[in-house]
Amino acid sequence: MKLNIALLAGDGIGPEVIDQAVKVCDAIAKKYEHHITWKPALTGAAAIDAVGEPYPDETHEICANADAVLFGAIGHPRFDNDPSAKVRPEQGLLKMRQKLGLFANVRPTFTFPSLIEKSPLKKDRIEGTDLIILRELTGGVYFGERGRKDDGNTAFDTMTYQRFEIERLAKKGFEFAMKRSKKLCCVDKANVLESSRLWRETVQAMEKDYPEVEVSYEFIDAVAMRLIQWPKGYDVIITANLFGDILTDEASVIAGSMGLMPSSSVGSKVSLYEPIHGSYPQAAGKDIANPLATVLSAAMLFEDMNMTKEAEEIRRVVNKSLAEGYVTEDLAEGGKSYKTSEVGDWLASNI
Amino acid sequence: MKLNIALLAGDGIGPEVIDQAVKVCDAIAKKYEHHITWKPALTGAAAIDAVGEPYPDETHEICANADAVLFGAIGHPRFDNDPSAKVRPEQGLLKMRQKLGLFANVRPTFTFPSLIEKSPLKKDRIEGTDLIILRELTGGVYFGERGRKDDGNTAFDTMTYQRFEIERLAKKGFEFAMKRSKKLCCVDKANVLESSRLWRETVQAMEKDYPEVEVSYEFIDAVAMRLIQWPKGYDVIITANLFGDILTDEASVIAGSMGLMPSSSVGSKVSLYEPIHGSYPQAAGKDIANPLATVLSAAMLFEDMNMTKEAEEIRRVVNKSLAEGYVTEDLAEGGKSYKTSEVGDWLASNI
Ligand SMILES: CC(C)[C@H](C(=O)O)[C@@H](O)C(=O)O
Ligand SMILES: CC(C)[C@H](C(=O)O)[C@@H](O)C(=O)O
Repeated sequence: MKLNIALLAGDGIGPEVIDQAVKVCDAIAKKYEHHITWKPALTGAAAIDAVGEPYPDETHEICANADAVLFGAIGHPRFDNDPSAKVRPEQGLLKMRQKLGLFANVRPTFTFPSLIEKSPLKKDRIEGTDLIILRELTGGVYFGERGRKDDGNTAFDTMTYQRFEIERLAKKGFEFAMKRSKKLCCVDKANVLESSRLWRETVQAMEKDYPEVEVSYEFIDAVAMRLIQWPKGYDVIITANLFGDILTDEASVIAGSMGLMPSSSVGSKVSLYEPIHGSYPQAAGKDIANPLATVLSAAMLFEDMNMTKEAEEIRRVVNKSLAEGYVTEDLAEGGKSYKTSEVGDWLASNI
Repeated sequence: MKLNIALLAGDGIGPEVIDQAVKVCDAIAKKYEHHITWKPALTGAAAIDAVGEPYPDETHEICANADAVLFGAIGHPRFDNDPSAKVRPEQGLLKMRQKLGLFANVRPTFTFPSLIEKSPLKKDRIEGTDLIILRELTGGVYFGERGRKDDGNTAFDTMTYQRFEIERLAKKGFEFAMKRSKKLCCVDKANVLESSRLWRETVQAMEKDYPEVEVSYEFIDAVAMRLIQWPKGYDVIITANLFGDILTDEASVIAGSMGLMPSSSVGSKVSLYEPIHGSYPQAAGKDIANPLATVLSAAMLFEDMNMTKEAEEIRRVVNKSLAEGYVTEDLAEGGKSYKTSEVGDWLASNI
């Protein structure tokens, strides 16, 4: 098979972890006789520095015409504490999601047998966790009108949802649930927010089309608690953009490390694959970042292309590196650890 | 001392847990020669049923003229899945917070030595946790304009903050930090939200008035993760209404049980004390709910009245009940358990 993959390394540790995923994908391509053409493009702070824009049109062209997008991370601390910055790396991420129509962010949460002791949570609470959070990604308070009034003394953001935005996300949720344990949980704050009431009303109306799926409705505050208390109580969660941002990061503690958690963002056209860990600026350039989340994101990419064998091969080699302790320092618990690039080389050579 | 305390039992398990706190406070009053006049008033679904309004004017009068308010819980499932309900119990809670000017919700998070094994988190991660979350309570998306457009197919909520609202909450945060470990963390989503940028800008401008306090700024998604990974990293957290709603419930897992966590809501006038657990309708009327969070909320009440001995006496007797296993079924781990009312009687008789 021939694949064109847009390669957006981005900021911080993005370039380093992306490099390892490329090595692994190239090894897969070699083994299974595929041909991957990588199309590198600028994004984030890197793109601001180069062309003054965090998601340049040229980058969009490359993504829109690719079979898939592999993405590293975006964000730079020099923008975070400057409330007056006009252009921010994150705007690139939001623009990219919107222009590519990536309305659903899919974040699986699972545990690795060899790492279960690394979780801050007790083993019996998390062993066997297998849930998916579907976060709405192109609506809500991320994209509503915002601004200042009163000489800058009042600030506002608008959280807004349209019925069709909720329907298309919920549809993906019902479909996932049908392929899994047939349990769907809609997470909102319908006891306060009108947009949440529209979520609840919309999902309720869809229940009849999926009579086998057991649907529950829970409040975000309660779920922020229950997700940690008993993650095995959840199968598929659907939720709004902001709530999903919070819950998915929170859920990453279950696995014990953000450095392992992959994600995909899907819509009508091309899909995007990225680790959930972000740009982690403190580690940038040090060759110490854990590349596994990005490598596992590439596995999701192959899976979605119906290249199941290839996806499984990647997961196998990742599990092998964990089992044999061929890992970066974050997973080494004081034992021997390897550089980012060494882990990438090892994974590729074991394929 | 003479105290007038407004008593708002509310819904669900509210009346049952409030009864036990009254027993304990009456025992304290007897021992230390105070006189408490309880002023019961209606709120929540109970008030809707009685007078069609979840926070009647009469209730407000009673609260506004009291020395403090002791509150149980609000909420009833018959409203939760009815997106079209016109009057909701929660509106009473929000109206009460707003009319009483309760702009800061103070939620301490700590562990109980005798219960540390009950937490889903590992002991070494949580032992010694001692943090306070200060949640803004009368602003943000809870109180902004909301509604529908497009024949009901678009819903919106407005997240809005004014500088003075942030200042007065942050001031309390800096003051708490000065009395504690001098670490303040402002939690927001300033990489996306304009209201968060106003938070950051406002708090940054106040830093110079508290040169001893070390201030950090973190994103809500990262904190949702770090709070579980390493709660001992935090001392005082300040945050907006919605973020605080989520984080405070999440933080309750650290202690292992929501049934233990007290809170106070303070402002310029009267203060309110309530357990964080909510109305827990499944347990209502069964005499099984854990009354300790409400009893510990009463301890916060005495503390704020500078009645430190009284507050300590309550905490002592609560610790004694935990140590001796005189607890409700949620804490009994299959061992002998006691009814809500029995625990209340036991606490009162041990004062
Ligand atoms: C960087 C930020 C804008 C982004 C988000 O909030 O969506 C990130 O936290 C994420 O989850 O991808
Ligand atoms: C019942 C609900 C409106 C309320 C809130 O969100 O403020 C509750 O969750 C709380 O935290 O007191």
